[in-house]
Amino acid sequence: MEPRNSDSNNLNIPTSTKKRIVIVGGGFAGLHLSKKLSIQKYQVVLIDKQNYHTFQPLLYQVATSGLEPDSIAHALRTLLKNHRDFYYRYSEVICVHKDQSILETSIGSISYDYLVIATGSKTNYFNNPNFEKYTMPMKSITEALDLRSLILQNFEKALLTNDYEERKRLMNFVIVGGGPTGVELAGALAELKNHVLPNDYPDLDIRMMDVHIVQSGSLLLAGMSEKSALKAQHYLEREGVHVWLDTRVLDYDGKTVDTNNKDIEANTMIWAAGVTGVLLDGFNDNQIIKGRYKVDEFNRIEGTTNVFALGDVACMITEKYPIGHPMVAQVAIQQGKNLNRNFSRIYNNLNPIPFQYKDKGSMATIGRNKAVVDIGKFHFSGFFAWLLWMFVHLISLVGFRNKLVALTNWIVQYFSYNKSVRLIIRPYIKD
Amino acid sequence: MEPRNSDSNNLNIPTSTKKRIVIVGGGFAGLHLSKKLSIQKYQVVLIDKQNYHTFQPLLYQVATSGLEPDSIAHALRTLLKNHRDFYYRYSEVICVHKDQSILETSIGSISYDYLVIATGSKTNYFNNPNFEKYTMPMKSITEALDLRSLILQNFEKALLTNDYEERKRLMNFVIVGGGPTGVELAGALAELKNHVLPNDYPDLDIRMMDVHIVQSGSLLLAGMSEKSALKAQHYLEREGVHVWLDTRVLDYDGKTVDTNNKDIEANTMIWAAGVTGVLLDGFNDNQIIKGRYKVDEFNRIEGTTNVFALGDVACMITEKYPIGHPMVAQVAIQQGKNLNRNFSRIYNNLNPIPFQYKDKGSMATIGRNKAVVDIGKFHFSGFFAWLLWMFVHLISLVGFRNKLVALTNWIVQYFSYNKSVRLIIRPYIKD
Repeated sequence: MEPRNSDSNNLNIPTSTKKRIVIVGGGFAGLHLSKKLSIQKYQVVLIDKQNYHTFQPLLYQVATSGLEPDSIAHALRTLLKNHRDFYYRYSEVICVHKDQSILETSIGSISYDYLVIATGSKTNYFNNPNFEKYTMPMKSITEALDLRSLILQNFEKALLTNDYEERKRLMNFVIVGGGPTGVELAGALAELKNHVLPNDYPDLDIRMMDVHIVQSGSLLLAGMSEKSALKAQHYLEREGVHVWLDTRVLDYDGKTVDTNNKDIEANTMIWAAGVTGVLLDGFNDNQIIKGRYKVDEFNRIEGTTNVFALGDVACMITEKYPIGHPMVAQVAIQQGKNLNRNFSRIYNNLNPIPFQYKDKGSMATIGRNKAVVDIGKFHFSGFFAWLLWMFVHLISLVGFRNKLVALTNWIVQYFSYNKSVRLIIRPYIKD
Repeated sequence: MEPRNSDSNNLNIPTSTKKRIVIVGGGFAGLHLSKKLSIQKYQVVLIDKQNYHTFQPLLYQVATSGLEPDSIAHALRTLLKNHRDFYYRYSEVICVHKDQSILETSIGSISYDYLVIATGSKTNYFNNPNFEKYTMPMKSITEALDLRSLILQNFEKALLTNDYEERKRLMNFVIVGGGPTGVELAGALAELKNHVLPNDYPDLDIRMMDVHIVQSGSLLLAGMSEKSALKAQHYLEREGVHVWLDTRVLDYDGKTVDTNNKDIEANTMIWAAGVTGVLLDGFNDNQIIKGRYKVDEFNRIEGTTNVFALGDVACMITEKYPIGHPMVAQVAIQQGKNLNRNFSRIYNNLNPIPFQYKDKGSMATIGRNKAVVDIGKFHFSGFFAWLLWMFVHLISLVGFRNKLVALTNWIVQYFSYNKSVRLIIRPYIKD
């Protein structure tokens, strides 16, 4: 392991006799790793280009006028309270010089004893420039806010056109990807159609609005049970969503979605079809597999001794998970906690514990009183599943105030059949 | 009065046998005018470039990480529920052809029987281009969000510089204007300094942060009682705010605030020193006075029969108000309600009622448990005044959900001594 070279530190982190852990990314993995880490006799530096943690599973509610960002964003500096020798820096990362144990960022370079890469994932357009140019991603709060603005702008525009085809295109939404994000977004759009927009646009025939979800496989919610997948499909179809299975989107020009099945006219296509790890420069090809860092059972990147990767950006190949763990919050949280424990063990000269994923189950909500839940061999749906979904998401939100604000909004929405944040704060302008 | 020429209507408003009232602006005046107006046998068209009403008195809380926009913004389309023949259009206004009774907007032109201009006011830089270039306004939600981002960005930058002068400039805030906006903003910044930032930036000496408020007159809160003004000053000074009375800002280059009293080094100057009406093209100079439309006692613009102006953009000269009414929410609300009543009287061939302003008093808060209130001859301050301030602002917020979300935030902030929305959602980039 390289000794720390404090001279290369331009981030104004004080020198310390303790070993320094630099964490890149304050997502689920970074957050759960950070907790109480500094008290374990390390100096900890957390770097993120956002000054907040994003609770990504509820981004779709920001996009569909259900929640404001403050319910799902949590200021990272709140972590610093009650910590010692813990620093946060608002910065982007440029690359890693792993031979010198130095991280280069947009505000200078910093040396580390241990580096943890928890940069998460980004939208994967599978190298189709049209998808990148014309579709709307939903991986960050600003992207979700842009989508919210665009949806509302579309309806304002639809009011003004007398071209029937154009109006239809403005009111059509195609979601590509039938995973939890796509399913939950489709459900929320259907709720807008059925309960909110008819009041907001009395001079528009909202029946013209169509929500399509396109899935390449033969079932929605790949990874969940067949029973849950079919139930989710049933719920969506009952709400009026068009579910296209075994359908692949071939191309999109901003107006027509070209699929192997049927062409769909829509001005808005939302891309929820895949993600890929956010990799930092400075690693070799043999350290990367399927767009993620190849890590051992301790989340150490192959060929390194002091560089770790966690969560979406880490690919740990095990017997049970031959292509790595699923890119979901639970894996990131559990890997963060395990590495936290292991840093404590390393400090005390104990052997680290290999990571073991405990699958706590998965769930998706389709709308009011409608959700599907898989826990081990149990699959259930309906009102109780929906209550459980609400409860799990509420307690998982970071921060007491966030929970309270989200709960307040959900209760009001439940009784009012309304989505209150139909606000175009910053209009979305296509480049 | 001109007959309606429906052919010039490109906004897709259906023709109607009823007379058409076009309202420009969904602020306090437009909102209170709109209420139930369509039920009074008019066709009503509301035009606003934002799709929401902004509760401007609480913008400073958005800027200082206390509230998210959704507490103080209310979707205008919510108004449409339970109305008939009421249309909202998301558009900017270009000009008025008052001889033809046609309003030209960015989405087409529309004829009207009655036009109501309730466009409010904008920041007045008094023709100093440096003020416009280098200072931060706070008249809209996006401006308040930009200010929030800038404040937080400043502290992130202050951490990184070793230039003492630069760090001081980043941590200094100068507010120009000692009206309610300036005073409330200064109080909120002082609260950030005293309760929030020391936890967030343990590696920064927050004592270096200074908040200055610059007022050209010899008292803060011009228009309130001397007792309240002095009390507010006392509160601010006790919280560490530097109050500069009888001080005018002469110039600002983005680094040094040049005043007739003392130069202050600060990278951030917030402009709360004055507003001027948002005028539409199409009127003569003799219809405009002090940047506002000259209106008669029925809020009709001088020399017109069917064009009205309300609120900040209207200047009604009376014996009691020789330079027009103060540009505050109460005047706008009362004028909106009065015109609403008068449209009903006009429909029933009754004479309209002249506007009479009922001054319900004024108030300003400086922080936790600290506010000043003037009601008629009564002036009081302290905890009870603060409770009253909270109560009045809470019940004035538009929409049940907005009240509930704001209350939730305020209660949590009261007990946690925290401001939770310290989020840089979109970084502010100076042009």
